[in-house]
Amino acid sequence: MAPILLNCMGNSHGECVKQPVQVKNPYLDSMEEDILYHFSLGTKTHNLPEMFRDIKFVCVGGSTNRMKAFAQFIHQELNLPGNREEIRDICEGTDRYCMYKVGPVLSLSHGIGVPSISIMMHELIKLLHHAQCRDVILFRIGTSGGVGLAPGTVVITDKAVDYSFQAQFEQVVLGKVIVRSTELDEGVASELLQCSSQLPNLPTVIGNTMCTHDFYEGQGRLDGALCSFSQEDKLDYLRKAHEAGVRNIEMESTVFAAMCRVCSLKAAVICVTLLNRFDGDQITTPHDVLVEYQQRPQVLVSHFIKKRLGLIVGNPQNP
Amino acid sequence: MAPILLNCMGNSHGECVKQPVQVKNPYLDSMEEDILYHFSLGTKTHNLPEMFRDIKFVCVGGSTNRMKAFAQFIHQELNLPGNREEIRDICEGTDRYCMYKVGPVLSLSHGIGVPSISIMMHELIKLLHHAQCRDVILFRIGTSGGVGLAPGTVVITDKAVDYSFQAQFEQVVLGKVIVRSTELDEGVASELLQCSSQLPNLPTVIGNTMCTHDFYEGQGRLDGALCSFSQEDKLDYLRKAHEAGVRNIEMESTVFAAMCRVCSLKAAVICVTLLNRFDGDQITTPHDVLVEYQQRPQVLVSHFIKKRLGLIVGNPQNP
Repeated sequence: MAPILLNCMGNSHGECVKQPVQVKNPYLDSMEEDILYHFSLGTKTHNLPEMFRDIKFVCVGGSTNRMKAFAQFIHQELNLPGNREEIRDICEGTDRYCMYKVGPVLSLSHGIGVPSISIMMHELIKLLHHAQCRDVILFRIGTSGGVGLAPGTVVITDKAVDYSFQAQFEQVVLGKVIVRSTELDEGVASELLQCSSQLPNLPTVIGNTMCTHDFYEGQGRLDGALCSFSQEDKLDYLRKAHEAGVRNIEMESTVFAAMCRVCSLKAAVICVTLLNRFDGDQITTPHDVLVEYQQRPQVLVSHFIKKRLGLIVGNPQNP
Repeated sequence: MAPILLNCMGNSHGECVKQPVQVKNPYLDSMEEDILYHFSLGTKTHNLPEMFRDIKFVCVGGSTNRMKAFAQFIHQELNLPGNREEIRDICEGTDRYCMYKVGPVLSLSHGIGVPSISIMMHELIKLLHHAQCRDVILFRIGTSGGVGLAPGTVVITDKAVDYSFQAQFEQVVLGKVIVRSTELDEGVASELLQCSSQLPNLPTVIGNTMCTHDFYEGQGRLDGALCSFSQEDKLDYLRKAHEAGVRNIEMESTVFAAMCRVCSLKAAVICVTLLNRFDGDQITTPHDVLVEYQQRPQVLVSHFIKKRLGLIVGNPQNP
């Protein structure tokens, strides 16, 4: 199999990542079998290298329908043979996640929140490792609440920050809290921003993304079943977030960034804002407008992938 | 509409809960419209009292397929008219959650993890409030890892505990951590245990349930993409959990219990164990055995509901 040769951009420590995707678990390679339970895949039941070795881009997002739509969209964008309506869910043996492979692109759903995406990321990284994939870039494409931005703006994440605006993720390991860095790949982020400037109707900024473990109280919404604070408390918190560089709020970016960083995987988070949280809490935008907003991160990542694959004229290696 | 009269059992403070389901949000009732975004329902677009007022039992679980199967199962168990294959997903406008109504029973999916079930619980409690439901009991039916139990054992949760074995849930509100109690209804738990003794092939215990935010490192698995501890460290943690009364581990119980308690809703958590974590990490049990295990909490809750509705001979009010 001839691997697609991509630019070796080096990670933040200047080292060049050419080796297959690495797990950080000394026990894994000595296991007789690895069952990726939540994907309904396994090393004995499936030939993972044959199925996945040519993967170069992994796109993950919360909703199953949206990730199926993305797979069909990228199939069309890459001008691949076959009927895009017939792309099969590789995880059809389970309803936990869905997964579609379209040429060198893998499209996966991860559900809502850090625990849900965390399971998916463990099994995805193991899958990429077992399949001996190299030079893979991961993208989370999602929706978010905007902080001081017009609805429909796409935010490319600079730093994924927690509720106290720190670029860190607290992981409990055997009852002890450890802290991991959530820095993302600056090169991929600026390449994405440049891509956005080449596309119509795609207002895009780079900013910090706050990841919360709750949609209502944790994000300062006044419309949950529980609310113990005032409108002024809420606005005060959002203003502090804005001062700390937060431009949008979602629920998965910190663990996504932290796990990619531990495994030296290049990664980016690209979310569209569905509302400006300074103006309200409820998502009242008409359905068709929301659908168009949700396509924006997909269009941006598709453009990036096409440039990297040399399908768009320009200098895809060093934009 | 004649409400089904159920026993007034009082909550743990001895007070009798007869009023409609209450939210703990002073702003909600003054909102012109409440859009339950993740259910694709709303107070202006749907007549929630007409749709839901007769709900007495709410069953939630992670998987969409399983909660559809439960809806079909309870339809059959309650001998309701109509074709159980044609039960419609009330949330068909979204793929975030699914929801089925079968007579007085609502069956909902909640995805994986605390943030995912937290969104569902906010919107469910608001739905029950808007619909003026009374005397509702909530059940989480799920799967879990067992701690010192044979696979297939059903655990009725005594206390939902966190990674440090405390019966508490830490909720971030506007950047500050607050702690909520996770105690569940003792009366419902012991009634469920008594039901289990009347059913064949349903080994059941009452024990503490540990809720983690991660399936791999947080639960001491050696088979994730990341693992920085030894087999001995893992077993030591599981032994400490067992000494603290933990009999199973899952990922949603603490926030489910905490939110129900804040809103004075009676609730129980019933999860089957798929493996004994002292014996391993991977779920290697054959698919058909797992399917039968997953039906056990459904069978138990169905029996409880039928007793409460007077469909089973005995003394359903005070068993």
